[in-house]
Amino acid sequence: MTHWAFNCDLVSIALLNNKLELSMSLLVCVMQRNNEKLLSRLKSLLPSVEIYEWPNCPDLGQVEFVLAWNAPDELWAQLPNLKVVQSFGAGVDGIAINLLAKQVVVTRIVDNQLADDMAQFVLAHILTHKLRIKQYLAQQQQNIWKPKRAHIGNHVGVMGLGELGKTVANKLVINDFLVSGWSASPKQLKNITTYTGQDGLNLFLADLDYLVCLLPLTKHTEGILNKSLFAQLPSHCVLINVARGQHVNDEDLLWALDNDELAGASLDVFTQEPLDNSHPFWHHPQVSITPHCAALTSVSVVCEQIAINYSALLNNESLKNVIDTSKGY
Amino acid sequence: MTHWAFNCDLVSIALLNNKLELSMSLLVCVMQRNNEKLLSRLKSLLPSVEIYEWPNCPDLGQVEFVLAWNAPDELWAQLPNLKVVQSFGAGVDGIAINLLAKQVVVTRIVDNQLADDMAQFVLAHILTHKLRIKQYLAQQQQNIWKPKRAHIGNHVGVMGLGELGKTVANKLVINDFLVSGWSASPKQLKNITTYTGQDGLNLFLADLDYLVCLLPLTKHTEGILNKSLFAQLPSHCVLINVARGQHVNDEDLLWALDNDELAGASLDVFTQEPLDNSHPFWHHPQVSITPHCAALTSVSVVCEQIAINYSALLNNESLKNVIDTSKGY
Repeated sequence: MTHWAFNCDLVSIALLNNKLELSMSLLVCVMQRNNEKLLSRLKSLLPSVEIYEWPNCPDLGQVEFVLAWNAPDELWAQLPNLKVVQSFGAGVDGIAINLLAKQVVVTRIVDNQLADDMAQFVLAHILTHKLRIKQYLAQQQQNIWKPKRAHIGNHVGVMGLGELGKTVANKLVINDFLVSGWSASPKQLKNITTYTGQDGLNLFLADLDYLVCLLPLTKHTEGILNKSLFAQLPSHCVLINVARGQHVNDEDLLWALDNDELAGASLDVFTQEPLDNSHPFWHHPQVSITPHCAALTSVSVVCEQIAINYSALLNNESLKNVIDTSKGY
Repeated sequence: MTHWAFNCDLVSIALLNNKLELSMSLLVCVMQRNNEKLLSRLKSLLPSVEIYEWPNCPDLGQVEFVLAWNAPDELWAQLPNLKVVQSFGAGVDGIAINLLAKQVVVTRIVDNQLADDMAQFVLAHILTHKLRIKQYLAQQQQNIWKPKRAHIGNHVGVMGLGELGKTVANKLVINDFLVSGWSASPKQLKNITTYTGQDGLNLFLADLDYLVCLLPLTKHTEGILNKSLFAQLPSHCVLINVARGQHVNDEDLLWALDNDELAGASLDVFTQEPLDNSHPFWHHPQVSITPHCAALTSVSVVCEQIAINYSALLNNESLKNVIDTSKGY
């Protein structure tokens, strides 16, 4: 795990502030979101910096640092002095990396609380299925008293073993689940059987009771949760997708649920968010929907990390949580 | 924790069987339950023993050992040679201890899996509330997309620190909850602040986000979850009762929920089970009902423990999991 001073307090950021005397500006371009709190918090952390919210920026030529999520493609060509793009999220799939100049550094948010929240969410949703909580709530609506044993299966597969995946896997291990992991590059993790590559994927899937998706979204992982993958899972397996909606082929998932290839799905993320009103997921009896709330990044953590990276840029120090733009994570 | 050979296998029980040559019989009197599997399993473990199900027993005078739950009061006076009453549950509130002769030994089931199941159930129901799972399921029914942060509170109070209470408390500790405990006699537990007695109760209740009841049911604890106790809890607190329905004063609980003295209740146990069709709990929006399924004792564990205690009785060895009949647990 990457450890650095995320828990730095306002005092240390204030010290950094003294060095912020150059004239460059910070642009916030986080779309489809009310950024009022974010801007006010950023301004209080970086009082001497000019902070603008796109499209209200008097001189895009001065912008060296952008906080971005789903920015319009045309923005990037208008920033000749861009040095850093800080993703607003833990992933960078909201950043059009292919439109950035080669020398632009892309960083992301690493929020340890976010990983813990994610782990708690995944555990809760596995237990919700295992202990039939949704089933009992439905029975309560009909005054039905019908005790049943919990589902027996304890084998969870976690796809994606980055910060989030590792934290989730460890949380499941301490809660007595048998945990397997799959990732693009080989990983070794204590108490977890790990697999890599296409051959590894087949072995990984064959015996799972729960499949948790925490992959980064890349051209290799888009649509990975599809008919051929579902066909390799035991039919009593339950899918928990807390990564991105685009990992799932929605039609294939519905087909798998309707044809006993999969027992259920807990979905927190969707290709279109909010989920379209007419989408069949809403009222499918085996689908549980949460509104992309598994791990909500706290504005104060985001702002502290921006302040630290912005100061690092000014001082020619190395930035934190830089991603490999060739890999896309 | 009491550790002994509960995981003894059929071989070791078979060895014990060789000694079972005396003529005494075992009576099963577990009411309102289909005991077919139980009897067949018992007979296979104790092939040389005469096993009867009440009221079909040719000679009650031969009965020295009874497996009982909610047996009719008149039974006990008909058993002149009774030596051991084995409770069918982890508790002994299904045994009319006051009607037994002084020398009768009462034992109970200690199922380690049961404690683990209970801990998982309690954790799952705390997380269900914390992560608003019921709320999101209700929103799904209405196509509502409305992400909210999880509830913040992490402080859980566990009433009752016997086998089950301790296991639950420890499970919550490893899941990063702040845990306090309350019990009739003082207990010291690692990472858990413990309280005792009436003064301790007031302190224990004052700051809880979740209150879990795992008390034994005795004349001191019956109705303990009442108006005066609820008044001492923070109004955002959620009650989880997995002990006995009789711990709760139902009217007081409904009053507390309706008057913002309590935020919710997850109830697995009820004074009358199955819960009466007309009971207001069924459709109260803040009540979640499960049908006494938090921890279902496995028939094979029960039968192994009976076989071991039955053999111990025959061999004048000390019995396992004997309760203190003066305390009632």
